[in-house]
Amino acid sequence: MEVVKLDLGANSYEIHIAPGLLNDAELLRSRIRGQKVFVVTCETVASLYLEKLEQVLQGFDVDCIRLPDGEQPKTLGSLELIIDALLSAKHNRSTTIIALGGGVIGDIAGFAAATYQRGVDYIQVPTTLLAQVDSSVGGKTAVNHRLGKNMIGAFYQPRAVYIDTNSLNTLPVRELSAGLAEVIKYGILADVNFFSWLEDHVDELLTCEDSAIGFAVKRCCEIKAEIVAIDEKEEGGRAFLNLGHTFGHAIEASEGYGSWLHGEAVATGMVLAADLSRRMGKIESADALRVKNLIRRCGLPVKPPEKLEASQFIELMKVDKKATDAGIRFVLIEDIGRVDLFEDVDSAILLETLAAGDQLCETD
Amino acid sequence: MEVVKLDLGANSYEIHIAPGLLNDAELLRSRIRGQKVFVVTCETVASLYLEKLEQVLQGFDVDCIRLPDGEQPKTLGSLELIIDALLSAKHNRSTTIIALGGGVIGDIAGFAAATYQRGVDYIQVPTTLLAQVDSSVGGKTAVNHRLGKNMIGAFYQPRAVYIDTNSLNTLPVRELSAGLAEVIKYGILADVNFFSWLEDHVDELLTCEDSAIGFAVKRCCEIKAEIVAIDEKEEGGRAFLNLGHTFGHAIEASEGYGSWLHGEAVATGMVLAADLSRRMGKIESADALRVKNLIRRCGLPVKPPEKLEASQFIELMKVDKKATDAGIRFVLIEDIGRVDLFEDVDSAILLETLAAGDQLCETD
Repeated sequence: MEVVKLDLGANSYEIHIAPGLLNDAELLRSRIRGQKVFVVTCETVASLYLEKLEQVLQGFDVDCIRLPDGEQPKTLGSLELIIDALLSAKHNRSTTIIALGGGVIGDIAGFAAATYQRGVDYIQVPTTLLAQVDSSVGGKTAVNHRLGKNMIGAFYQPRAVYIDTNSLNTLPVRELSAGLAEVIKYGILADVNFFSWLEDHVDELLTCEDSAIGFAVKRCCEIKAEIVAIDEKEEGGRAFLNLGHTFGHAIEASEGYGSWLHGEAVATGMVLAADLSRRMGKIESADALRVKNLIRRCGLPVKPPEKLEASQFIELMKVDKKATDAGIRFVLIEDIGRVDLFEDVDSAILLETLAAGDQLCETD
Repeated sequence: MEVVKLDLGANSYEIHIAPGLLNDAELLRSRIRGQKVFVVTCETVASLYLEKLEQVLQGFDVDCIRLPDGEQPKTLGSLELIIDALLSAKHNRSTTIIALGGGVIGDIAGFAAATYQRGVDYIQVPTTLLAQVDSSVGGKTAVNHRLGKNMIGAFYQPRAVYIDTNSLNTLPVRELSAGLAEVIKYGILADVNFFSWLEDHVDELLTCEDSAIGFAVKRCCEIKAEIVAIDEKEEGGRAFLNLGHTFGHAIEASEGYGSWLHGEAVATGMVLAADLSRRMGKIESADALRVKNLIRRCGLPVKPPEKLEASQFIELMKVDKKATDAGIRFVLIEDIGRVDLFEDVDSAILLETLAAGDQLCETD
């Protein structure tokens, strides 16, 4: 088993990673402080893993809520359903909420834990690659608002994260690819060697080969843990994790959350960021193309929807959380393995990137 | 001007107290970091003080929401209204929310600040005595749920608290009395000399005499700041601040929030706590009677509603946030000026207290 420690003082916790981890009852049980447990999951994941989790939790007083699949239930309405269920079953401050599922479930369950009676324990059991390498680690919780993604939420750390990489065997290939977008992100923003390793091992990752997946998940969690430990509340370097997200969130918002998967939108967002970085003279065209090619090999989209016009694209980016009074804030690539924040992007160059379509990252 | 410092490391802030403080534009303006401000207030307070606040904020980009008066808007629905308004007016993470009003407004506005884009700055400008001595200080934010009070919320500290004691001149006498309940609470739980001072100055407080009110507000804020600095998240001594609240919340819930004011319910809760402490042999009957008499002199109720039966009372206390797996947790009086937590209250004695009615705290 791999263990990655997230060092946040009193809020520190461990991320456990192994194939078959959901069979390790003692480990999970040891992190539950009270007698009552509340599981938040979705229909599909419940049908696959809920019974196994309930076996692990034998002896505890377990309640459960199953939300519909997909991004759509990520609303204040679902938060209210969870709070209703917690109160009706008389859960008090000593309860533990377990998030069993992908990023949407983790974000909602975490926000419920952050706000139920002003905060109770929660444990992340992420079952998608995207949740395992990104959303389950670092304590970002939220629900969406019709005017913007993740607009209502909190920074609230889990007590532990349990990653059973075997759960990826039941993951639809489209979601596996979407998770790989976030994996690639870590290579671009922090580790050129990891990026090269990904170029060499993309086929093993796409077939969920155990040791390749185990290494990739661990490396991503390590990079994320280092960044979050330095900047828990995203006042500085944590914003680097938003590489591709300013563009990506606008794509998701324009399509209605859910028609593009989050990872797909981030993938295209990274291609746009690479193209913008190239046009601004930060990286070589060859490196921008490396980014685009690796993303394409994972079966991910490499251009934004054609019907999304530049003016609407820019308007949507302005309501992004990362926007400041000074303007839209982009994470741009300085070199594969290194990124930085920019607020003073020339609007003419931005428009070129937004209009490039198939020519994104291609040499003129 | 009096200044009380709340020492919470990176989350430290100052509480400023003075008659006429709302005329001091520079002080308030100095704590606003961005260009945009969002004021949350209620109808009555808006008609009295909003114009003055807007003058102070000249030059900032100010939006405002006016909620209905009373406890009723303290819901997730109001949170959603505030988030809608913030997003529609394109407030980003650099915005500052100002809570202008009583405890309900402070709790909702604080919770909106805690959750909007995972947390933005907020400033408390409390206009009721209850908010000035209690809810505006210490970072407890929340909304109610039909199954329980303050069930959805967060610990989230303001950037500053500005208390203009002149605002008490427009406060209805019933609300002034309700605030005095929390003032008396501080005497009982932490400072017997302050309790005696209150016995000597209750008439000046009831007529809002400047120097008496100023001293009482400052002393309450000092006591609260000391307690919160040691235990921000209510894992220990902060629970002492809940003296009278376990009983009080049950009374509020049984009546529907709003028909009893929070301070009235806490007042009766303290009489019940004094009676229970006396029956358990912790305090002398004479001291229990001192508590009841001071509360009565403030025009506050000293017995629970007759239609609230003991079994329902106990059931409502079980869903209180302060309940643990071990049972209902009471703050009981060890001596005037000193309290402690108890979970093992004999149910027969509890039933005697709940049935005592007019005989509460009276010598048999």
